[in-house]
Amino acid sequence: MKVYNFSAGPSILADWVKEEAQRQFVDYCGCGMSVVEMSHRSAQYAPIHQEAKTLLKELMNVPDDYEILFLQGGASTQFAMVPLNLMPSGKADYVLTGHFAEKALSEAQKYGDAVAVGSSREAGYTYIPDVDSLACRKEADYLHITSNNTIFGTHYTRYPKNKCLVADMSSEILSAPVDVSQFGLIYAGAQKNIAPAGVTIVIVRKDLLGNASPVCPTMLDYAVHAKADSLYNTPPVFCIYMAMLTFRWLKSLGGLQTMAEINRDKAAMLYDYIDESGFYVNPVQKEYRSLMNVPFVTPNKDLDAQFVKEAAAQGLVSLKGHRLVGGMRASIYNAMPVEGVKSLVAFMQKFAKEHRND
Amino acid sequence: MKVYNFSAGPSILADWVKEEAQRQFVDYCGCGMSVVEMSHRSAQYAPIHQEAKTLLKELMNVPDDYEILFLQGGASTQFAMVPLNLMPSGKADYVLTGHFAEKALSEAQKYGDAVAVGSSREAGYTYIPDVDSLACRKEADYLHITSNNTIFGTHYTRYPKNKCLVADMSSEILSAPVDVSQFGLIYAGAQKNIAPAGVTIVIVRKDLLGNASPVCPTMLDYAVHAKADSLYNTPPVFCIYMAMLTFRWLKSLGGLQTMAEINRDKAAMLYDYIDESGFYVNPVQKEYRSLMNVPFVTPNKDLDAQFVKEAAAQGLVSLKGHRLVGGMRASIYNAMPVEGVKSLVAFMQKFAKEHRND
Repeated sequence: MKVYNFSAGPSILADWVKEEAQRQFVDYCGCGMSVVEMSHRSAQYAPIHQEAKTLLKELMNVPDDYEILFLQGGASTQFAMVPLNLMPSGKADYVLTGHFAEKALSEAQKYGDAVAVGSSREAGYTYIPDVDSLACRKEADYLHITSNNTIFGTHYTRYPKNKCLVADMSSEILSAPVDVSQFGLIYAGAQKNIAPAGVTIVIVRKDLLGNASPVCPTMLDYAVHAKADSLYNTPPVFCIYMAMLTFRWLKSLGGLQTMAEINRDKAAMLYDYIDESGFYVNPVQKEYRSLMNVPFVTPNKDLDAQFVKEAAAQGLVSLKGHRLVGGMRASIYNAMPVEGVKSLVAFMQKFAKEHRND
Repeated sequence: MKVYNFSAGPSILADWVKEEAQRQFVDYCGCGMSVVEMSHRSAQYAPIHQEAKTLLKELMNVPDDYEILFLQGGASTQFAMVPLNLMPSGKADYVLTGHFAEKALSEAQKYGDAVAVGSSREAGYTYIPDVDSLACRKEADYLHITSNNTIFGTHYTRYPKNKCLVADMSSEILSAPVDVSQFGLIYAGAQKNIAPAGVTIVIVRKDLLGNASPVCPTMLDYAVHAKADSLYNTPPVFCIYMAMLTFRWLKSLGGLQTMAEINRDKAAMLYDYIDESGFYVNPVQKEYRSLMNVPFVTPNKDLDAQFVKEAAAQGLVSLKGHRLVGGMRASIYNAMPVEGVKSLVAFMQKFAKEHRND
């Protein structure tokens, strides 16, 4: 049975990426070794590392005054790295748009005067605060946002202006073009839209490097990794290789402009059906709806549970919503084919028909 | 051509492990998903996580009062985590036996009064200091050692007694049985003897948890990961799966006692030939010679370079020594078959014969 994996992360990867990795898994390009066992300083690995960097730079049109880093520890480690590196004055501003934004703020408060300058918490995080009305402080070193909120299914449609805008883009990086020059730093755990869990992408403006706090562990200092081209210690070689394959795949499809169109169409198909169904509900204000994570509920919790179970039996898996919001969540990242969304909508229609009068 | 990979890390993995991972790569156990795209909270992944933990506990005979953690960031991140978690009094002792021991000490000095209480630096790290004569301080919270020194090719044959002995075992974990109860904490980057780069194994006595420094990032707090069974954030799912496969493979071979015998035989074959060759030299005091990493030199640097090049052409790859010591290094971890060592010795004999009078 064909399975469509709607997991929020780790999540679906493109068939081509998986098949290519499988084909080369035991003997990479005839070198007699697997990528999983290559020295990170070997002649075989060096071109993989460089190609991953070059393709990401090309896909995202990263300006020359930015460094691209491949790190470990996920976005959760970035919650500490950002304040430990970018807060020399000890002040930073955060916008609260969900669970991970809260965690990021809470971690920054360990290291300085970090405050929320905007929040949609009072409304269950169902919208993004107006980016022109944030209570930003002039003396704050940076402004931190979570560009897409995986759990609540919201995203920014435009970004606040700030001398150093920092964005957690874990759940929407590479889903559409973005003007990198608006940001001081972008970070993303790769396990949602790029690669297996284990590598974190960081794109940072070079002038921000070199201000790490004295208590910053060496491994959490961006400058250390930038100086060593992400080879300060052994990097997660296989994850970077898989990321490189995903970058190749995205390029072959036409890059991020093409992906943005496909993603808009996929999301529209799902939201349009939810809105017209008279059965399913998505609580997010329309203009802020995420194109990657689509949470929805049926009229009651028992039906939600039944939906998740029956969908899985049809090969539509990992649709259970996050415990904070319940219901269902369909994560429809780059690698989710339009056929997957069509299958989901077809199942939703059938399920609604059967249970409309329950 | 059959290739034998002597890389110090990332390094050779067992053929069975690679072939099994390849076979299941696109469709794990018929679930229609790859391990690389499974949610870490899914019904498919949970048994992998638990089996990895259970098998490691069994293989190393880990007592019940220890936690097993799967973390990220390699041994380099442990260099900070150890002092940030285990140094409530602000004092710690270190034994310097190589490059990584120096880095561990240097990182600890950021967070407290960490000193070297033994060192073989003056002799180019060619031996292990007497473990009964270390200048340990009673008030120090722990004593840190590097059980096997990957670059210099030494290892401890017995361990110092200490209320909290901390060991970096990255390059020899699972190569022989070890009495875990002698240690407060054992850590190991998995990319040498276990799995692809990207997961770090930590085995820590439970009573040591909960003393993290106020400046310790949440992600570097052992207690946070212990409480969440290494699922506080997204773990490196694929690396843990590969580790689990390696653990299965080790168990099927008879466990660590069997591996110790095989490893002793492999190392003896190589050291015996080096010593009798009258051509190659290993500078390490015999009783401290590593069973995992065997550095050696020919009579001159030009021949060293020629050796590395010609060996690679014969399928004996990644034999170049670390830049700090030059020459060659054969890393002969668990996954290196005895045939690999035999092939290396045969090549060394041929090379010596051809160049004895150069």
